[in-house]
This record gives sequence, C-alpha cells and structure tokens, in this order.
Amino acid sequence: MMDRYLEFAAELAVARRAAAEAAEIIVRRTGATEVREKERSDLVTAADEASERAVIARIRAHFPDDAVIAEESAGSVRSVGRRWIVDPIDGTNNFVHGHPFTCVSIAFADAAGPTVAVVHAPLLGEVFHAVRGGGAFANDRPIRVSEVDDPGRALLATGFPFKHGKGKLDVFLRMASDVITEAQDVRRAGSAALDLAFVAAGRVEGYFEIGLSPWDVAAGMLLVTEAGGRVTGWPGDGREPLESGRVLASNGRIHGWLEGVAGRYASAL
Amino acid sequence: MMDRYLEFAAELAVARRAAAEAAEIIVRRTGATEVREKERSDLVTAADEASERAVIARIRAHFPDDAVIAEESAGSVRSVGRRWIVDPIDGTNNFVHGHPFTCVSIAFADAAGPTVAVVHAPLLGEVFHAVRGGGAFANDRPIRVSEVDDPGRALLATGFPFKHGKGKLDVFLRMASDVITEAQDVRRAGSAALDLAFVAAGRVEGYFEIGLSPWDVAAGMLLVTEAGGRVTGWPGDGREPLESGRVLASNGRIHGWLEGVAGRYASAL
Repeated sequence: MMDRYLEFAAELAVARRAAAEAAEIIVRRTGATEVREKERSDLVTAADEASERAVIARIRAHFPDDAVIAEESAGSVRSVGRRWIVDPIDGTNNFVHGHPFTCVSIAFADAAGPTVAVVHAPLLGEVFHAVRGGGAFANDRPIRVSEVDDPGRALLATGFPFKHGKGKLDVFLRMASDVITEAQDVRRAGSAALDLAFVAAGRVEGYFEIGLSPWDVAAGMLLVTEAGGRVTGWPGDGREPLESGRVLASNGRIHGWLEGVAGRYASAL
Repeated sequence: MMDRYLEFAAELAVARRAAAEAAEIIVRRTGATEVREKERSDLVTAADEASERAVIARIRAHFPDDAVIAEESAGSVRSVGRRWIVDPIDGTNNFVHGHPFTCVSIAFADAAGPTVAVVHAPLLGEVFHAVRGGGAFANDRPIRVSEVDDPGRALLATGFPFKHGKGKLDVFLRMASDVITEAQDVRRAGSAALDLAFVAAGRVEGYFEIGLSPWDVAAGMLLVTEAGGRVTGWPGDGREPLESGRVLASNGRIHGWLEGVAGRYASAL
C-alpha cells in the first residue's frame, strides 16, 4: 500500500500545493460581492478565475505535458492520458455568500482513471486527499466510510438540480422525499466535492445527484472508493458517472437501498 | 449601544462559558457511535445529556433563581420571568455522524424577551453572540445580514419536517421547489440555530422552517434581529414564532417575497 502511495508522490505534492494556493485566494476573497452572472444560479467570480489560473500555473510548472480539464477553461473531457481535472471553487454560490462549504477540488488521472485526489476546504480547515490504492485521509489522518447498514439510520447528502427546469426538480424532490422518509435525513450543503469527502469521512452514509460535471466529482469519487465506499452511476443508465454526470456514492452497505430508490425515479430524470 | 451591551455582561459571560464547556464535550465525543433512539431520526446521545448537565450547572452556579428551559429536561416553556433557553447540542444527527454543522445554543430571556444569545459551533471554530440592543458578532467581530434584495440572487436555508408524516413533508418540499426555482438555491445543514446564525452573518439571505422548539431558535432569532434582519411567524398564523414553532427569518429585504411563498403553503402545513 505504501509503495502505491509513493508512486504518485510528485502528483500528490503538486495537487496539494496547487489546492493550497487556490485556497488562499478563496480565503482572501470570501464574501467579496463583486460577482457577475454566467447564468441563473451559476455565479462566476473573479476569485474563481484567479483560483483556476493559480492551479493551472502550478500544474504546468511541474507537468507541462499533462492535459488540464477545468471548469472555466475546459480542455477535452474525453482525454484519456495523463490529465488533471480541476474545479477551482466548488460550491461557488456558497463562496459568493461567505458560506464555509466551499472547496478546491483537484484530481489527477492516468490511463487507469483517477489516481490522486485533493479536496481543500479552507473555511472548514480541512484538506482531504487520496491516492489510488493508498487510502483516503482528512488532514493527513486516515478516514473510512461509516459502518451504518440500516438505511433508517443513514444520513444522505444531495444537490438539487436547479438548472434543469422545474419538472425535473419536482421529480428529484419526490425522490428526496422518499429518501428523507426512509432514511434519517438529507443534507444539502452546496458542494459535490465536499459531499463526497463527507461520505469518505463517514459523516454521511451516501450521496446522490444528477447533472454533474467531471470536475465536480472526479476527486471526491476517488476519496470515497479509497475510504472503502462505493461509487456507481444511476440504475439503468449504463454509463460511467464521470460520463453521465449521475452519481450514487455510499459506504457500500446502503448502496443497494440507494440504487433501489434512484431506480424508481431514474427514467424520469 | 455599549451601555445596553454591558447591562447583561454577566449573563453573556455565563452563556459564553457554559457554551464553551458544552462545546468541549461535543469535540471530545464527536463521531462516538454509542447512541440510542428516542424516536425515528431523533437521536439522543450521552453527550447530549452531558452537555446539558454542564450548561445547567454553569447557569445554576451563577443564577440559581433563574428558570431553565432545555431540550432534555424541559422546564415550563410558558415561563415569562428570567429564563435560559438551552439546546445542549443542536444538529444532533450531524453530531452523531461527526458532521461539523452542530452547535450549542443558549439564550437568556427576561420579561422583554430574548436578551442574550450564544451559538457555539466548535467543529466550525465559530462562536456567534448577540445582546439585545447591542448588535451581533461572530468570533467577536460584528456581523450584519446581507444586502441582497433580489430573491433570484438569494440563498435560503431550511429544515425538512421529517417527523410530521410524509403528507406534510411533500407539501413542504413543494414549497422548497418554489423557493429553489425563484431563488438561487436552498441549503439544508441540519441545525436551526446555525441556520439562523448564517442569516445573521449574511451567508444566506433567509430561513424557513416549521415544527421547531423554542430551544432550537431562541438564540438564533436574536442573532438575526441584532444583525439587522427580520424574524416573523408564518403568514396567517397570528402566533409568535417561539410559540408556534414556525419561523421565517431573513435579511429583511427579501422578507416580503419569503412570506409570499410561505403563504401559498402555510394552511396545508
């Protein structure tokens, strides 16, 4: 395990440093009000762009030949070689409001898929990281998914699909109602990367969302699997989550139940 | 303003110290798995009881004649004299899961109503406090509600009424759907006291919930009003929020819009 962990030591070091540099920008600009609208509910701030520039500069300085796929300057999502998948500020709406659930998400992937993950949440004081085959960590302490196997005792995280019309939103909220009724409760924090990090850390048992971009979830998905959890697409979809943007993640123990609930609504979403 | 602030200096000092002592218990026991169920989705932990004992002991040591209204050992909610309204762990489900959105909420009230408020969230590293007529603070820095007056740019916090049957839950989620569609998005963090503190700090523009107990919201409501915001009951209700358990809170600027949305659903909830 330790060998595996060290195989990507350089990529991990660069991901951590790039995330820390972007996190500094987040801290410096938190609550800044200077925002312009890209589209409804999708604010992009100068900080977002500055954060992305910082991350890309750091990656290019060390790995000039690697591809970079980032929210604000998307390279080809179809790239299959050495590539970095970057969300310079995940939870942008939170960031704009000074709400602490916001983070930098950086994944490094090679031909075998996501290999290194860093999710840095400066306002929470937490840095999550994982290396494929090497485990997952929060502030350098190993983390594991929770052992809760009774859905009735499970806490779920989700994001509401507010950009896809009220019809889909209402279907999604009917699914959320089932989840709230059958499980313990649902949390909606506003950052997919952190939601997945919280699954990895055992703070919620599962996570479900649709309409996601690769940079929202690439790092978080590796955190979950390296912490002993499970990540799949939605039932009946047949595509990988990074391709479909539809993610179910869990501690593994409640995954069958979560797939069952999602299966009731998947075709209408 | 400073005179007003100092008039209740002793009560504030005691509330802060009691909250800090309870917060230490929260930090020490975070993620503890030893829980028993009071009822579905309403976990009480040994930490909850220990936290409440610590808070009450601190209050009694300094103000032995004051009434204490607390979640686990509720005195008379109808008390109108000097009284302390205590939630030893708000966001219990989060606490049980090691999720950082959990806090100690302590309000002191006299014949004129809530006068001192402390909301201490140790895992977020934040202590909010307010004194009637003396302003609101986060980690001793003054806070103000946000200036967003366009509902379309507003972020709202809420709690789902999971203990009142699926019928009410579904009505509530229809209201949430309207809010998500008309505003920017909704956050569901799992702690009413912190939701209100976040309104006070300008991190969300408003908050709506039903089925609340006085200890969930007494401190948070004072934080909001002292930060320049507004707190009311729900339209058509006629009762005070502390009595009805139905709260609308906002930065003031979007309050009319929020009352309008709530008004569409209030009679069905």
